[in-house]
Amino acid sequence: MEAKTEAKTKFKQYVFSFQEGDGHNKKLLGGKGANLCEMTQIGLNVPPGFVISTEACLAYLDSPDHSPPDGLGDQVQQQIRVLEQQTGKGFGDPKNPLLVSVRSGSAMSMPGMMDTILNLGLNSETLAGLIRQTGNQRFGYDAYRRFIQLFGKVALGIADEKFDKPFDEIKKREGVKADIGLSADHLREISEVFLEVVRHETGRPFPSNVYEQLEIAIRAVFNSWLGKRAIDYRREFHITPDMANGTAVNVCTMVFGNMGSSSATGVGFTRNPGTGENVMYGEYLVNAQGEDVVAGIRTPKPVQEMEYEMPEMYRQLVDLRNRLENHYREVQDYEYTIENGTLYCLQTRNGKMNAVARVRTSVEMANEGLIDREQALLRVDPEELEQLLHPRLDPKHTVNAVAQGLSASPGAASGAVVFDADRAELLGRSGEKVILVREETKPEDIHGFFAAQGILTSRGGKTSHAAVVARGMGKPCVAGAEGIKVDVRNRQAQFGEKVLHEGDIITIDGGTGNVYLGEIPTVAPEFSRELRALLGWADSVARLKVMTNADTAVAADQARDYGAMGIGLCRTERMFNASDRLPIVVDMILANTTEERQAALDRLLPIQRGDFKELLKVMAPRPVTIRLLDPPIHEFLPSEKQLEQELDHLQQLRKTVEGVTDLVGAMRLMHTQTRGTPPMPLPFGEGGTELVNAAIAKKQLMLNKVRELFEINPMLGHRGVRLGLTYPEIYAMQIRAVLEAVAECTKDGIVVDAEIMVPQVCTSEELKRVKLIVDKVKREVETEYGTPVHFKFGTMIEVVRACMRARQLADVAEFFSFGTNDLTQASFSFSREDAENKFLPFYNETGILQDNPFEVLDVNGVGQLMRLTVDWGRKERPDLKVGICGEQGGHPSSIRFCHHIGLNYVSCSPPRVPVARLAAAHAALTEENYRTD
Amino acid sequence: MEAKTEAKTKFKQYVFSFQEGDGHNKKLLGGKGANLCEMTQIGLNVPPGFVISTEACLAYLDSPDHSPPDGLGDQVQQQIRVLEQQTGKGFGDPKNPLLVSVRSGSAMSMPGMMDTILNLGLNSETLAGLIRQTGNQRFGYDAYRRFIQLFGKVALGIADEKFDKPFDEIKKREGVKADIGLSADHLREISEVFLEVVRHETGRPFPSNVYEQLEIAIRAVFNSWLGKRAIDYRREFHITPDMANGTAVNVCTMVFGNMGSSSATGVGFTRNPGTGENVMYGEYLVNAQGEDVVAGIRTPKPVQEMEYEMPEMYRQLVDLRNRLENHYREVQDYEYTIENGTLYCLQTRNGKMNAVARVRTSVEMANEGLIDREQALLRVDPEELEQLLHPRLDPKHTVNAVAQGLSASPGAASGAVVFDADRAELLGRSGEKVILVREETKPEDIHGFFAAQGILTSRGGKTSHAAVVARGMGKPCVAGAEGIKVDVRNRQAQFGEKVLHEGDIITIDGGTGNVYLGEIPTVAPEFSRELRALLGWADSVARLKVMTNADTAVAADQARDYGAMGIGLCRTERMFNASDRLPIVVDMILANTTEERQAALDRLLPIQRGDFKELLKVMAPRPVTIRLLDPPIHEFLPSEKQLEQELDHLQQLRKTVEGVTDLVGAMRLMHTQTRGTPPMPLPFGEGGTELVNAAIAKKQLMLNKVRELFEINPMLGHRGVRLGLTYPEIYAMQIRAVLEAVAECTKDGIVVDAEIMVPQVCTSEELKRVKLIVDKVKREVETEYGTPVHFKFGTMIEVVRACMRARQLADVAEFFSFGTNDLTQASFSFSREDAENKFLPFYNETGILQDNPFEVLDVNGVGQLMRLTVDWGRKERPDLKVGICGEQGGHPSSIRFCHHIGLNYVSCSPPRVPVARLAAAHAALTEENYRTD
Repeated sequence: MEAKTEAKTKFKQYVFSFQEGDGHNKKLLGGKGANLCEMTQIGLNVPPGFVISTEACLAYLDSPDHSPPDGLGDQVQQQIRVLEQQTGKGFGDPKNPLLVSVRSGSAMSMPGMMDTILNLGLNSETLAGLIRQTGNQRFGYDAYRRFIQLFGKVALGIADEKFDKPFDEIKKREGVKADIGLSADHLREISEVFLEVVRHETGRPFPSNVYEQLEIAIRAVFNSWLGKRAIDYRREFHITPDMANGTAVNVCTMVFGNMGSSSATGVGFTRNPGTGENVMYGEYLVNAQGEDVVAGIRTPKPVQEMEYEMPEMYRQLVDLRNRLENHYREVQDYEYTIENGTLYCLQTRNGKMNAVARVRTSVEMANEGLIDREQALLRVDPEELEQLLHPRLDPKHTVNAVAQGLSASPGAASGAVVFDADRAELLGRSGEKVILVREETKPEDIHGFFAAQGILTSRGGKTSHAAVVARGMGKPCVAGAEGIKVDVRNRQAQFGEKVLHEGDIITIDGGTGNVYLGEIPTVAPEFSRELRALLGWADSVARLKVMTNADTAVAADQARDYGAMGIGLCRTERMFNASDRLPIVVDMILANTTEERQAALDRLLPIQRGDFKELLKVMAPRPVTIRLLDPPIHEFLPSEKQLEQELDHLQQLRKTVEGVTDLVGAMRLMHTQTRGTPPMPLPFGEGGTELVNAAIAKKQLMLNKVRELFEINPMLGHRGVRLGLTYPEIYAMQIRAVLEAVAECTKDGIVVDAEIMVPQVCTSEELKRVKLIVDKVKREVETEYGTPVHFKFGTMIEVVRACMRARQLADVAEFFSFGTNDLTQASFSFSREDAENKFLPFYNETGILQDNPFEVLDVNGVGQLMRLTVDWGRKERPDLKVGICGEQGGHPSSIRFCHHIGLNYVSCSPPRVPVARLAAAHAALTEENYRTD
Repeated sequence: MEAKTEAKTKFKQYVFSFQEGDGHNKKLLGGKGANLCEMTQIGLNVPPGFVISTEACLAYLDSPDHSPPDGLGDQVQQQIRVLEQQTGKGFGDPKNPLLVSVRSGSAMSMPGMMDTILNLGLNSETLAGLIRQTGNQRFGYDAYRRFIQLFGKVALGIADEKFDKPFDEIKKREGVKADIGLSADHLREISEVFLEVVRHETGRPFPSNVYEQLEIAIRAVFNSWLGKRAIDYRREFHITPDMANGTAVNVCTMVFGNMGSSSATGVGFTRNPGTGENVMYGEYLVNAQGEDVVAGIRTPKPVQEMEYEMPEMYRQLVDLRNRLENHYREVQDYEYTIENGTLYCLQTRNGKMNAVARVRTSVEMANEGLIDREQALLRVDPEELEQLLHPRLDPKHTVNAVAQGLSASPGAASGAVVFDADRAELLGRSGEKVILVREETKPEDIHGFFAAQGILTSRGGKTSHAAVVARGMGKPCVAGAEGIKVDVRNRQAQFGEKVLHEGDIITIDGGTGNVYLGEIPTVAPEFSRELRALLGWADSVARLKVMTNADTAVAADQARDYGAMGIGLCRTERMFNASDRLPIVVDMILANTTEERQAALDRLLPIQRGDFKELLKVMAPRPVTIRLLDPPIHEFLPSEKQLEQELDHLQQLRKTVEGVTDLVGAMRLMHTQTRGTPPMPLPFGEGGTELVNAAIAKKQLMLNKVRELFEINPMLGHRGVRLGLTYPEIYAMQIRAVLEAVAECTKDGIVVDAEIMVPQVCTSEELKRVKLIVDKVKREVETEYGTPVHFKFGTMIEVVRACMRARQLADVAEFFSFGTNDLTQASFSFSREDAENKFLPFYNETGILQDNPFEVLDVNGVGQLMRLTVDWGRKERPDLKVGICGEQGGHPSSIRFCHHIGLNYVSCSPPRVPVARLAAAHAALTEENYRTD
């Protein structure tokens, strides 16, 4: 006792018994060590042991010659003496040998970093004692040969194969297939050979001194912190020194589950990690060691059987489970061993589980009073929720992917491949399930999206047109699957080695980006009772409202079911692309005069009014924010190349038709000349030229317009309000459609909340001019319908200059909505479509940029602009409503930032609504510790 | 006297005699009235008169029935009485009639707004008196008929033609050609006819009551303020009510220069307005009225002759000139009349003059002590200076323009038209003067720019490639001349009606945008002694330094002569386009491996090093800021279309060559078969296929690369530092070239100041990575050359996010340079090239945006970003050097803003350097009253 006191006063304490270590100091004791201390101290039956701290490890590694810090050796010896007292055994005592396990454990879990050394303390003498004690020679030699190999490999750095080779030779010589077939004698021989292997490889005999064994093992653990595997792992998972620095060493008394029929070993979860159900869950094996479970030679039994097989043990296990949950207030993943009727808990940690289980356990644990609702909310990662809303591939399928793209929009779908939108629509209408497969998609493919189960493209990134639109619609999409070569002309595509034709079935998994041949069954999504409950709690703590981006009543309806509190962005141009409208839109674009343009617009008006009315009704009385036309109008026309090809084709056709016409003419002439009367008119040939000429003229007109509209940088081009002001009749039509829809709803007694939003604004003057149109149309509509028309008028904030002029804009606008897609492009000067195909992946891989700013809001740059905008805007108009409707509006870290700078709402695609609701709650619950650069 | 006192006490004073009016209150008395008062009060001999204030005008116009304000009539009568006392004449007195002139005059000069009414006060009775007094019947009737017509037109609103018709009839009847041929009798008859015209047109007799005449005239002046002409003029010249509101009325005693040989009339400038020389300058006519000078019947004499003809009058005139300049301390444009040996000064105003004269008079007046140097500086508009630095068209030419484009780069030039850059280079080298005429230019045309006198394009705006490059080189450019259709294939172009072929001579005037056929002589520019003096004074008061954007030693040399204090922007890519380098650059781009790329770069290194060394030496010891490669590399390749055409052509060629080869083969075969021996080899046909195939392969490679590099929005694409980091060997080469150039100069004993600048930076991480390359190359170069290498490392600020991250960037960068071209594009989300062809003109015309932000810095938006950047950057690094190198850096209002936010320098094209130096001085001198929105 004197020595111990002396060490304590002279040196730092590096070693802590399980009884004294601070269970919350993972930094000092490592996660595993702290947990062993904590379990011990709350009265669970943990085999006695101690922890050597991470400080000891760092001191060791910092010393020039890697020598253990002063006092460590003494402290370890003292703790061994304590173990001897607690177990009544002796370390190195041949009569009653104390055996221990040695394992590493740092503050952050780094699985598989270093193997555990079991049975340390064996040598030829203690082995004899062990055999005497257990009366089981085979057990003894088996433990011994395992110890020599593990120690040789882990502590002495000898390659496994050096052991495996002689081992296999002996098995071969004896004609034994499985290890279990080896007798005690075989195992003794193997032990001896292994001792020789160690002597040969290290040049020294195997250490028989148990203290020497222990010291070597401890050094090995320390050294492993600077091993390549560990360094790689920390780099890969971004583990920095402030998160984990150095590893602790856990030394624990061995217990044996293979001592006979009253011994066993098992693992369990405190609840079902697949479903979340509150039941005993796990497996065990009687008379076995943990390794046996892994080896898979014997099939473990479900824990429920233990109730009959070992009823008392089962009662204790239920008790253990309850104590674990009551203490940790979290589902636990635990390991235990029963040694001769005594239950030991060897390890516990928070259980990993899928989203379904996480949601259910959260809600149930809150309802049981185990945790409160805030804890329940914080327990679920918002990102996980999205899995719950899409069909998933049946996890039991075994098919290999034929191609791999980007996981552009989650969910899985099977269907027949089609290579253009028209075919997709045609087949889709006839009830067939189709997957639209394109090199890339354009706005004119939109009707194909509606008809398809999913979209697959061979080009484009996660924010390509296909990806954005598919996400908006909640349809699965795999984008940029480069292994696929689409040949539209021949209606086929190369999928890796195979050529698929239209109609062949494939399956895509938008959650992983995998593409499979044939149909793979899917599992339907579930919006469970528990999820609804959890999100209800979320809404009550969140300050941010969650809106949705939706252009159709179907999407709006789904979003409302997911809890959307309104529509934050309705893109009116999506409606222009439907097949019944596109020809009218094309007429509008080709118009040479304002009158011609007006005529086309007059035809569009009732259609748009109908769309808006439907949306307003679905969402009533929630707000619906309608954005006026945004994209450049050339997006509604085919590409120059396509038109050139079509014209070529038509001109060929004209030649053919002219030939036929000439032939017919010649025949008629001949007929007249020979018979004296003209023949009956023929059903074809004549008039054909006029038809073809008309088609050529129309295409030529389109081609001219496409060329006229060509822009070098369309993203920064003639679009949004710029277009709206140069062709004011387009905006006037859209505004009228909105206000008439409001008026009709109002007359129908439906309370609706419409908002008109102007895109691409850079100066308040633009907004004022649109406001003039709005005011005029409002007066007209109010007079025509005889009812006041209520609505709000606001602006997108997606042009940087708009941020700088927030004060002036807030003078005109009643609300702001950040269009962070465009704002990000303009802030970075990155063209999204180009960057994601060119340098952005490189930027992310090399860490120049941590995230793709088109997915995760760049809070330091774009966010800074947003913060200024909100502050300046509210200076002018304190009650200014501000939201975000860019892609990032559904991303948890972005939502957190939006909460932080005081936005009123975020708007995202329907399937992201639940994610956003939970993220908004998280933001509110954790706002105190929010920091930005 | 009682009445006068009463009026004064009861009503506001609306009428002011020239003796009492406040000469500085132009707002109240109008410019002309205030001047008349001031001249009277400083003792110049001004004919007596009075001013009716603008307040009277506004009161009149504001009253519902347009009635003069109370008291006005009385005050006018009192002033008439004062005039009568001063002149001893009587208003309406037949014996000794007082005649007056009535004219308008507002606070802002609005020339030609309303004609002056002369000789008011004439009627049949006073006319008789006038004739009696002067003894000159013809003079009397001439004055009378002129008065009736002028009054009829100006005050009564009768069209001129009503008078001109009968007047011409009488002249025709009498066989008289010129007015001078009319006798007194004719003029009397005309007067009578004119009185009848007035009666017929107005339905009332011509007012014979002189007070009625005066009242009608005053009302006419008042009404003219709301006339269409006045309103249009004020709109056109942006005259707002706070600048001028209402017009004053000036009533002045008539004096007559046509009273005999001791009478005269004349106009003069106090200095020569063409050259600025300090001499008597002007013309006069003896026995004449002002109108006679205008009519051009008699030729006026230069004022110098008066010294001999009327020596006493000349002495008085010299005295008048001196008193005017001493009082106004500004060159005056004055009018005078000598009536019977008495000199009257009728009017004076600040003299308009050209830039040459303005500079010279400013410097000389300062040297004479008339004004101080600050006043001299402020007296010259910086924009004027640019005219002085370019050849101008001889102002005497009379040729009409054949086309009109935008004044894209100032200066005039003549030369033979050529339609491509290669021809321009070829002809230019042979000493021919050429004008490069293109639809639009691209970077690969750069060698044509060097060779040409000027550039003319039929497409593109003031910031098109042609305009920007030409301005950078200081070459004249007319851009977007839509009347010209270029037909490159046939080497001809349609100029309006005419077709010009290569070699035909044209002249372009980049100052006006005019294009002329043939050669028009030009006037050489002069960088005069006075201009140097003025700019020297400017530099001593300016806080901003003025740098230049220059890529060649020639440009740098010129800029230094213009006073550039260094190079603020050297675009290294300009050097890549020279014809000896472009092939190497293309090889670099086509390289498939880093090694191939390095090989090309190794060839570029010595060339770039030479360029930099030359620039550094020319500018030594001034700073030279070298920007690393900025544009996307596809700019160095031909367009996809061009390559496709070239490939087509080559494939045709291959067929031909193959045909020839076949033919040759067949002939040889035949020869061998018939003669038994093979023929001599032929000089062509064989081996041709290989040559063509090699060419095809190369072009195909280029085409593939162009397609691979295609970007949807190249402005936001893979360029600048993004390129520099993905191909670090390119930047490494450029950095090495700079540092080796520095090392060589240092070893040569030349003190140079190099700065390396990184373009397109959006995050400090990019800058740090480039810095790593810089540090490595620095160490290597220092070792190789054995000399320390000093330079600065900094960044362009042209990406919005860089502004937001200014603090973090300032941690790495020693200087910032705002690239306001790109920053403006990103802030507005306007693609410059597209916007200027599409909606921007509409935006400017309709006032949505006041200026083109690519020409004039948008201080409210882009400027706001700049202000934040400077503040944040200097928080991190208080001595951070900050400048601007965008187009707008040479624009005075932009320079003023740059001064205001504390920049250290502006950088602009060489010809803008003098402008910028003066503007920088103005900014410093007027900083106190600077305001932004």
